[in-house]
Amino acid sequence: MVDITPGASHSITIRLEITNKPGYFAQIVTVIGDLGGNLGAVDIVGVKKDFLIRDLTVDTRNEEHAERIVEAVTQIPGVHVRNVSDRVFLLHLGGKIRIESKTPLNTRDALSMAYTPGVARVCRAIAKDPSSAYNLTIKSNSVAIVTDGTAVLGLGDIGPEAAMPVMEGKAMLFKEFGGVDAYPICLNTKDPDEIVRIVQAIAPGFGGVNLEDISAPRCFEIESRLKKSLDIPVFHDDQHGTAVVVTAALINALKLVHKKITDIKVVLLGVGAAGAACSKMMLQSGVKEIIGLDSQGIIYKGRREGMNPMKEWFAEHTNPNGRRGTIMDAVQGADVFLGLSRPNLLPVEALKAMNADPIIFALANPDPEITPEEAHGHCRIMATGRSDYPNQINNVLCFPGIFRGALNVRAADINEEMKLAAAGAIADTIPENELVEEYIIPSVFDKRVFEQVASAVSKAAIESGVARRKTDEKK
Amino acid sequence: MVDITPGASHSITIRLEITNKPGYFAQIVTVIGDLGGNLGAVDIVGVKKDFLIRDLTVDTRNEEHAERIVEAVTQIPGVHVRNVSDRVFLLHLGGKIRIESKTPLNTRDALSMAYTPGVARVCRAIAKDPSSAYNLTIKSNSVAIVTDGTAVLGLGDIGPEAAMPVMEGKAMLFKEFGGVDAYPICLNTKDPDEIVRIVQAIAPGFGGVNLEDISAPRCFEIESRLKKSLDIPVFHDDQHGTAVVVTAALINALKLVHKKITDIKVVLLGVGAAGAACSKMMLQSGVKEIIGLDSQGIIYKGRREGMNPMKEWFAEHTNPNGRRGTIMDAVQGADVFLGLSRPNLLPVEALKAMNADPIIFALANPDPEITPEEAHGHCRIMATGRSDYPNQINNVLCFPGIFRGALNVRAADINEEMKLAAAGAIADTIPENELVEEYIIPSVFDKRVFEQVASAVSKAAIESGVARRKTDEKK
Repeated sequence: MVDITPGASHSITIRLEITNKPGYFAQIVTVIGDLGGNLGAVDIVGVKKDFLIRDLTVDTRNEEHAERIVEAVTQIPGVHVRNVSDRVFLLHLGGKIRIESKTPLNTRDALSMAYTPGVARVCRAIAKDPSSAYNLTIKSNSVAIVTDGTAVLGLGDIGPEAAMPVMEGKAMLFKEFGGVDAYPICLNTKDPDEIVRIVQAIAPGFGGVNLEDISAPRCFEIESRLKKSLDIPVFHDDQHGTAVVVTAALINALKLVHKKITDIKVVLLGVGAAGAACSKMMLQSGVKEIIGLDSQGIIYKGRREGMNPMKEWFAEHTNPNGRRGTIMDAVQGADVFLGLSRPNLLPVEALKAMNADPIIFALANPDPEITPEEAHGHCRIMATGRSDYPNQINNVLCFPGIFRGALNVRAADINEEMKLAAAGAIADTIPENELVEEYIIPSVFDKRVFEQVASAVSKAAIESGVARRKTDEKK
Repeated sequence: MVDITPGASHSITIRLEITNKPGYFAQIVTVIGDLGGNLGAVDIVGVKKDFLIRDLTVDTRNEEHAERIVEAVTQIPGVHVRNVSDRVFLLHLGGKIRIESKTPLNTRDALSMAYTPGVARVCRAIAKDPSSAYNLTIKSNSVAIVTDGTAVLGLGDIGPEAAMPVMEGKAMLFKEFGGVDAYPICLNTKDPDEIVRIVQAIAPGFGGVNLEDISAPRCFEIESRLKKSLDIPVFHDDQHGTAVVVTAALINALKLVHKKITDIKVVLLGVGAAGAACSKMMLQSGVKEIIGLDSQGIIYKGRREGMNPMKEWFAEHTNPNGRRGTIMDAVQGADVFLGLSRPNLLPVEALKAMNADPIIFALANPDPEITPEEAHGHCRIMATGRSDYPNQINNVLCFPGIFRGALNVRAADINEEMKLAAAGAIADTIPENELVEEYIIPSVFDKRVFEQVASAVSKAAIESGVARRKTDEKK
């Protein structure tokens, strides 16, 4: 995951002793600027007789870039580097989340109400009617974020400990954007049977389960068995979160190019878990022709090379005309390109072969299948997974609101109706008269998104019969 | 769990419309007082033309008592009961704990440091060195509170949902008294193999495991297998928390009566999980003679009736003189009575048969084996499990500090040395010149306890070789 432009994800704070005479600070600024570092906050933390102690925060491109900048500053006469701290690591020290009591326990009365002996009456009430756990425990607002650490970001199978920072980050997002109390459960097993059994066993205390970064094809089996056996929502964000946001972006893109979803042809590069979920949702939304490709080309019924059960699904349910060939064959007459593969796989020639007003969703991480710079002039609408280009396809737009909506009505499931409602709600956040090519998907900092997603999802849950409360109003 | 005196654990708030003329409020106060209710806060919440709306908070003895009081108030002419709310249930609405982010996620920079892309570097650092999860995740401060809901308080097997309020209360105590982030994991299985496997699998994200309210004898096997297989501390509070606090109380009681621990004879009524843990700790502390009894009398080597593996342990390791008989036989010449059984099982005659200066720890819940009123004049020192008598033996004195101490040095275990250190630290909180019969154990609100326990436990962990940090100083 390499950043092209300097950013906070590679931000350092350099503590310097600087000779207290004019010109020294200017030299430092010049050196950092010449090397392409972005100088941010500058604080004075101490004043001595001959020198000032300053903290300089510098956004850099990557670790190597940061080292070069520090090295160059070290070389300036009259400047001494006291300490360099990595702001990202500092932020992670001791973890990013904590547990808080909702009420203080500082008196005897508080103790006897929250714990023994008072708590016994609450326990008995739940024993008598287990559904009252929704009223009387954190279950009503809690989600288990479950991973086995096998497919974390683009890093692959890095194990449960190394997955923790992502899951804690996810818990932060759940809280910040959905008001949901989510706790990371990182499992020291990769066995689907065990994972299913464990999630079933820990379910009583949770109101929902968010599966995260579990590698395919195990993620399909695990999700499907858990959905069948549990009476709380189970949601694999890597699949369905992506599918919901892609569908939302597609809805708005099609409004701009005045095409009907039933008329378009979609080319999908990357037929993994997210690709399958996107395809299913697009088919449900009315798309008739999807052509999927892996590294060996178009997937068609009857193809024998490099197949697996997921690709068999694609062969069965997509590519209705049985087309074969390469990416250049696939894009002939296509309206939409959806990339969920690897950086730089889409040549600019492919865009030229598409129908008028090409829609390009190039979501490969960290760099898209084609950069917006290359695609410029050859497509009408472009979206990526990155925050430094317009139209970021970000799962954060989906999962906090979809769980908020599910929890508000005590939904037993997050079903297709609820996912489609979420996609529609995300799309509808932008009024049609505000839609432009560079604004088809709202910002994650647009708080209306989560409220509208939650409300639409609650409504869909009630209408599709999986809600155990018939109103999403908080008591 | 019945409260003898009115208390907060059965506290109600009655919302009343009261005719706005002199005398009506006095009538209400009289009625509540006559029925034995404790009137607390009185608030005016509304003033209408003819009446006032008031909220009256009343501590009652139990639910039936509360109903009688409400019924009597309803009968007063000119007074209308609008609403009655149960303060304990109100406190539990939506649960008692929540997850918080340590830093806000309200800017693009914050997102890119706490989540993608910045988080990837932190993940890679942990993948390279899994022990750095202690630095960079919540693991350094987190405890899983694990139960299967089979032995909750005195309520028995009430299931995982109904156990949640106790586990959430425990999480609050962990935070309030130990600064520990603890999360409840209530399991929908009673199978020891499954429980062991689940705890092993969820362990990577936690710095410790507190087993809670798991019924005997399964709790022994589960604890022992987990202690052997995990590299984080596993502590069954019902056993060891009780044993630590009992030992602390015993240490201080013996100072008052000027007896040496190696000289005393202890009678133990109730040979369950807690009894076994207390016996082991007393033996380790130097006690030579313990006589255990169940409902069939003294346990001795060779007894055949009503035995089980735990009682076989007692037969093997206690009662060195092979005594037999009833509780009256057992107490002849005893110095200490420890009750972990059921209310009212100890006749006052038994106290008279003991040695001079009898020490009575009557810890049955909700009422002791003998009440302090009955025992008065027949024993020198008395302790119970109740907060409304002096000398409350309360596990809260132990578990927050013991885990705090273990986490501070990244201990791999909570071993015997650490438990003994905790008992000594609790006892030492009270200086010898302040010790009196009614003050042998500190209050749970004495904050010194947790600090001193944590510090002593860290030191013992370092000295006994289970600490992975050689200092308990926070970075």
